[in-house]
Amino acid sequence: LVLVKLGGSLLTNKNKKESLKKTVLKRMAKEIHSARKKSDVNLIVGHGGGSFPHFPAKKYKVNEGIVDKKSIEGFALTQDAAARLNRIVVKELLGAGENAIGIQPSACFVCERGKIALSFLKPIAEMLSQGMVPVPYGDAVIDTDLGVTILSTESILRELAFKMGAKRIIIVSDVDGVFTADPSKNKKAKPIPEITRDNYEKVKGYLAGSAGVDVTGGMAHKVEEMFSLNDFGVEAQIISGLKKGNLEKAILGESAGTIIR
Amino acid sequence: LVLVKLGGSLLTNKNKKESLKKTVLKRMAKEIHSARKKSDVNLIVGHGGGSFPHFPAKKYKVNEGIVDKKSIEGFALTQDAAARLNRIVVKELLGAGENAIGIQPSACFVCERGKIALSFLKPIAEMLSQGMVPVPYGDAVIDTDLGVTILSTESILRELAFKMGAKRIIIVSDVDGVFTADPSKNKKAKPIPEITRDNYEKVKGYLAGSAGVDVTGGMAHKVEEMFSLNDFGVEAQIISGLKKGNLEKAILGESAGTIIR
Repeated sequence: LVLVKLGGSLLTNKNKKESLKKTVLKRMAKEIHSARKKSDVNLIVGHGGGSFPHFPAKKYKVNEGIVDKKSIEGFALTQDAAARLNRIVVKELLGAGENAIGIQPSACFVCERGKIALSFLKPIAEMLSQGMVPVPYGDAVIDTDLGVTILSTESILRELAFKMGAKRIIIVSDVDGVFTADPSKNKKAKPIPEITRDNYEKVKGYLAGSAGVDVTGGMAHKVEEMFSLNDFGVEAQIISGLKKGNLEKAILGESAGTIIR
Repeated sequence: LVLVKLGGSLLTNKNKKESLKKTVLKRMAKEIHSARKKSDVNLIVGHGGGSFPHFPAKKYKVNEGIVDKKSIEGFALTQDAAARLNRIVVKELLGAGENAIGIQPSACFVCERGKIALSFLKPIAEMLSQGMVPVPYGDAVIDTDLGVTILSTESILRELAFKMGAKRIIIVSDVDGVFTADPSKNKKAKPIPEITRDNYEKVKGYLAGSAGVDVTGGMAHKVEEMFSLNDFGVEAQIISGLKKGNLEKAILGESAGTIIR
């Protein structure tokens, strides 16, 4: 079992409400199908919400829980926007030839203070055993403490990796792994193909001051989260989806971006 | 708690793929919101799939389970079509002012030989307690025996009625309750406002040969299903959504169509 996370900023234009990077999405879907034809790997393809749920989530502060009378409305609008992007992603995967099944996280996960407290994974497990490709996504979900919260795609995939015994999780964004410096600012930045506990102290030095790969946290934080996956036997791979063929290679277990193990 | 079922044939044109009866849908959404403004009733609004999932479900015989190599594709396409209609229904409810949350049945129910065997209802229960309106729908779901199956909106709502203690379930279609004869064929057909165990023998005589309210079963079968709800303290009401104001009245507990208790 391999888990793929398609970053929200890879699929949508971050600053423009409900904008779609359709060419990238189409290519991702084709690479996934191409890899699946060459190998019988079981896949879960999660995706971020980007500029679909981002705007209502931010406006209504859904990540802070139920803070005022408008919070429920914000939850409903965030939910709907996230689910609408999911339908678009599923449509592209179906079009590419995959039996993709959108999975609504708010119907099968409940959080407590932002962390998954209850999950119902039987449908996903059965879908995988029948060769389908479940497609969960970052969603606004019920929180027994805060009322509501935001559950990120990565939190969902980590939960699925632990509970279902994944071999590898592939994080696809617009940065091709971990570099010795911020590649957008420093032309001498070099990619780091592999990070292990042995070379992490050195890598940590490089990451100090990094711009980070994602709005949800800096690269150092991300690498450390990946180590917690390693403890459960799950490798993590950070790749760019902007490099043609990268995702297909990563699914097939070939070298691309940075592997953390 | 009141449960509403909007029939698939009320929302879509049965014979035309993915056609929408948008005027009816918009009015249903407005009546739901209007009733909610007048009363603090908790609502779950389920809807059938009509001509959205009907075509792939029939083509691939999804209700028979995994019968051949194409069954998984049929499941994926049926799923997607059902979920797309759900987004349209949710959009109209949001537009009318309700905090509607689509609920994907295949993410929170698992069947065994066509009957619900496992369910995860915590999210729905919490959404209700926060005043949201969960919106489930007839869906293609995992079946531990058949592989896959079709789970009807009514089966879902019956399960929710039992587990959550609903007061009433309102079945909205294009027939205004139970009649003494088929009203489309017999001008002398009279509505029956109330069916109880006391008058059911007489009603049964009327129903013999009825054209039925729904493609999924005749009216007699439907009434008998409703009696099984009555045993759990749940009243059932069958109304037409084509009569303006009917749904609002029914939600508010006023007389409309036929009540079975």
